[in-house]
Amino acid sequence: MDKERQASLSRIIHYTFNDPSFMIMALTHRSFSAQHNERLEFLGDSVLSFLIASELYKRFPRIDEGDLSRLRAQLVKESSLSAIATSMGLGDFIRLGEGELKSAGWRRPSILADTFESIIGAIYLDGGIEPTHQFVSRCFETQLNEIDPKLIQKDAKTLLQELLQSKKSDLPIYNVVSIEGEAHSQTFTIECHIKKSNIKTQGVGNSRRIAEQEAASKAYHLMLESM
Amino acid sequence: MDKERQASLSRIIHYTFNDPSFMIMALTHRSFSAQHNERLEFLGDSVLSFLIASELYKRFPRIDEGDLSRLRAQLVKESSLSAIATSMGLGDFIRLGEGELKSAGWRRPSILADTFESIIGAIYLDGGIEPTHQFVSRCFETQLNEIDPKLIQKDAKTLLQELLQSKKSDLPIYNVVSIEGEAHSQTFTIECHIKKSNIKTQGVGNSRRIAEQEAASKAYHLMLESM
Repeated sequence: MDKERQASLSRIIHYTFNDPSFMIMALTHRSFSAQHNERLEFLGDSVLSFLIASELYKRFPRIDEGDLSRLRAQLVKESSLSAIATSMGLGDFIRLGEGELKSAGWRRPSILADTFESIIGAIYLDGGIEPTHQFVSRCFETQLNEIDPKLIQKDAKTLLQELLQSKKSDLPIYNVVSIEGEAHSQTFTIECHIKKSNIKTQGVGNSRRIAEQEAASKAYHLMLESM
Repeated sequence: MDKERQASLSRIIHYTFNDPSFMIMALTHRSFSAQHNERLEFLGDSVLSFLIASELYKRFPRIDEGDLSRLRAQLVKESSLSAIATSMGLGDFIRLGEGELKSAGWRRPSILADTFESIIGAIYLDGGIEPTHQFVSRCFETQLNEIDPKLIQKDAKTLLQELLQSKKSDLPIYNVVSIEGEAHSQTFTIECHIKKSNIKTQGVGNSRRIAEQEAASKAYHLMLESM
């Protein structure tokens, strides 16, 4: 890999390696050489999981651990990582063996995602956690900014319904307990009732939907605990 | 939680919190309060996975990603974490609700392991990655020092055999290709042959066993790729 291509990738990832051998290893698929990137991928995967967990934890103080975990899974799944890799043109730099070249391996999502994780591992080994954090933050900035904590809460009703269906239980009934305040700033209290499981929970919110979600979330956790 | 108990735990974990509220939350089980430790546990789990991955990567440059992953799983599994938590007497500090107190929740491996992970998350939030790294290194020092990379390599032959048995394939035959050098520094080249799968790989090493393991490891990966 010549210096020009190395410099070109450095510009793309906004990071210049102190030791370019880390970068070269990160770009090397096992079909190309025994000095391939799979150990770096293992390392990069764990660095990425940690950095995303930390970012989500700090950004969303009110999201519970289950939702944090689902959000992270969403962000670091293969298709997300390969989309980021594609957007930075990483495929052009991957070193592949002949067979993989012929079958256009540089376009395969698994290879793109693995190489992206390897790059993360390589930056971490080369520069430590701080530049890795900066790289990951840049890569995921848009996706992190697009997360709407309100939409995550929406999952609670769906989750509860799925859980109850899987247990062949009756579905929850949501009742309005009270609506207080003026028209422009009402507070809803909603009860979620699952008859068969003898569960009654309440949620409070500025809209009926939010209150239902909170009640559903509580019921969901009670259900899980009783299983 | 009074200052004396806080100081006592600080001595045990060799870390004094700048903000003791992190420590208190880390010790709080969901049965005790809504301000419980499950978000911290999510964070601590990912910090721990990352730190152990990084430690294993650096300590064992010749162990492949599959074995690194298995080693990590071994180190961070619930029973390992609860053993560490027990050895530091963490159970005495966990804040449990009445029900959990009655059923001796402070001795339950899952609660001990979760609290241990929460403490890791709390140290990370309070002090950053460096003190967390030091804490984790201290906790896992003995276990990390006990890992024998030679024993891990032994797995390749076993893994290959198990894989072949699961596929109802014939078992591999190991043949000596060559033995070179003087008696005190011989180099063995061993071939691993799996007839039915038409796989032939070679391993080289200073003992027959090492060469066989290498040949087995290569055959194992070829088998996996062809599946």
